[in-house]
Order: sequence, then structure tokens, then C-alpha cells
Amino acid sequence: MSDTPLTPELILETAEDVLRRYGPAKATVVDVARALGVSHGSVYRHFPSKAALRDTVAERWLCRINPALTEIVAEDAPAADRLRRWLETLMHSKRSRAQDDPELFATYLALAAEARTVVTAHVSDMVGQLARIIADGVQRGEFTTPDPATAARAVFDATIRFHNPAHAADWSDPEIAKAFDAVWSLILSGLSVRPIPPLK
Amino acid sequence: MSDTPLTPELILETAEDVLRRYGPAKATVVDVARALGVSHGSVYRHFPSKAALRDTVAERWLCRINPALTEIVAEDAPAADRLRRWLETLMHSKRSRAQDDPELFATYLALAAEARTVVTAHVSDMVGQLARIIADGVQRGEFTTPDPATAARAVFDATIRFHNPAHAADWSDPEIAKAFDAVWSLILSGLSVRPIPPLK
Repeated sequence: MSDTPLTPELILETAEDVLRRYGPAKATVVDVARALGVSHGSVYRHFPSKAALRDTVAERWLCRINPALTEIVAEDAPAADRLRRWLETLMHSKRSRAQDDPELFATYLALAAEARTVVTAHVSDMVGQLARIIADGVQRGEFTTPDPATAARAVFDATIRFHNPAHAADWSDPEIAKAFDAVWSLILSGLSVRPIPPLK
Repeated sequence: MSDTPLTPELILETAEDVLRRYGPAKATVVDVARALGVSHGSVYRHFPSKAALRDTVAERWLCRINPALTEIVAEDAPAADRLRRWLETLMHSKRSRAQDDPELFATYLALAAEARTVVTAHVSDMVGQLARIIADGVQRGEFTTPDPATAARAVFDATIRFHNPAHAADWSDPEIAKAFDAVWSLILSGLSVRPIPPLK
């Protein structure tokens, strides 16, 4: 291994493999160092603690969904359509991770349960993207909500059953698509409410 | 203990104490029998398995919130007002349990994760109560939603962050009341949306 320079990127890729192989409870910095053929001191030179390494792995993993989502935010299309596709993209991404990458999914669940800074930052980024779609919808005359930022937080929280790992067990429920449609209708009506016209 | 007849009620009360003392992972039917001063065979005569006993304890515990909620459903008051108080009562009940009764709360969490029949039945009962309030709101001309049963499921799911034990860690977040208000506004607009009047 001495030919390959020990970059943070290489450490992170290896740490991801180690987490997948041993699971979040058992994986150690020593395991990562062993897989790289270096001393654990060399790993600590780049990441000051096991927590720092784990947070960065989780952050990197969370960020992988970002390009698909930011692309939807930037599209020139009706806001309601973008909002629905954004939510579906987030949901499908979480769902396929839960199925295809259960070890890293477990790591993310553990981090979410500890309410780590990395998750808070991710949620705040997601809510910011929703706010941009909703604000654009208001500008286009599609939505009438007075406060896009608050509405964005509400949309994120109101759909939490469909994208938060804590509810992963529900995602194989045959009723889940119908349940999402019901919440989606409620959200869409909620964002589009028009002032009641005065009585004649 | 031979003077007291061994009723299901007495077994359930004792099982609740044992669960509180040992936690759901460690509590056994033998512990319950020992606390009652009877053989575990006597307990099994009333509850065929540990799972049956645990389900009944959870059911009984879940049902304790029911009187307060059904009372709100039956009140003669604006539906929006009842809907909000119903959600708040559910939320506060879950919150005080998480704080005051952590061992039984952990039991409920374990059951919810296993998607046990007892939890499904409880959720369906809760959604039924919401449907009655919403249908009444439609009849009173407060709400315009076309399908109260679907809207009820949507309201339950959209507020899951605030009453589902999986999110208990969030409930001490100082922003949680503001987050609920945002979802509540979205729900209220969503239920009350009026058809857009035709352009003149």
C-alpha cells in the first residue's frame, strides 16, 4: 500500500467498506487502518477521532442524493410537479439504500438517533431546497402560501413517514403508495389555498 | 398470594410492573409468575405465550389514552378546534409517557418496530376517530375535503413526527412546537381548500 498516497478520500472509501462489512457497532479505526495497510496513527492524522471519521462517511453518503435533487429544484417546470418529483426522488433513494446498502443504512440510522450535527445540516439543506421550489411556485402563481420557508419545513415533516429511516419497516407495506398520495393531496391543497372570496 | 384469585387483570398489572423493572428485553413470564407467587403454568393458562401477554400489556397501555380522545371527538365544537385539541392530546400523552414511563415506552417502541397487530389496530382506531371529526367538519361546512377517511389517514401520517415513538428524541427540541404549528397550518389549509372561483 505504500505506493498509494493516503488521502482522506481513500480513507473514506475504505471506512465505508469496513462499515458495510462489520456494521456500525463493531467497526473500529484499527479495522480501517488494517484494511489500508497503515498504522491507525496515520488515519488519525486525517480524522481526529472515530466519530469524525464516521460523521464524514455519513455526510458523504447523504450527499450522494444531492445532484438528483438540486437538478429538480433548478428545472423550469410547474412547481407542484417539481415538488412531487423531488419528494419521490428522496423517497426512492432512501428506499433503495435501505434495501441495497443495509449496513450503511444502519450507520445512518444510528447517527440520526444521536441527532448528530451532520444529520441536522442535511435536513436543513433538504428544507432549503423545498423552500426554493415553493417560493418559485408562489412567484408563478401556483401556490399561495405566505411563508415558503415555514411551508418547506412543514412539507418535510409531513412526509417524514415516507423518507425517514426510522420508518423503513413501513416502506414495504402495500398501502404505502396510497398513504403517500393522501398526504400529497393534503399538502398540495394546503399550499394552494386561495383566500375565500367575500360573500356578494 | 393464594387468597387472591389469579385474574387476567392481576396478571397484566404485575406484568406491567415487571416490564417496568426489567425492560422488554429481559422480562420473562417466569418473572411475572414469581412476582405473583404462582407457577408459570398458571400464567400460561390465561396467556398462551409471552408474546400474547406482552401484546395485551401494550394494548391496555395504548388504550389508556382513548377516553380523553373519544371525548374530544364527541364534543359539540368547531371541527378544526377539536382536530387540533385531539392531536395535542395524543402528542402530550405520548410525550409524558416517554418521560414518565420509559420502560413501558421502550416496550411499545419494540412492538411498533415489529409492526405487531396490536399497533395496527390502535392506529386504525386513531384514524377512525380523526375521520369522524373531519366528516363532521365537512357537514358543518368548515372543511371541503371530498374523502374524510383518506384525509384522516393523511392527517395521522403528516403528524407522525409529533406522536410516533420513533421520533421521541425530537420531542425535547426547542423548535418542535413551531414545527408542529407549521404542519398544522398546512393541514388546516389542506382540509379547508375551496374550489377556485371561475375567472370573470
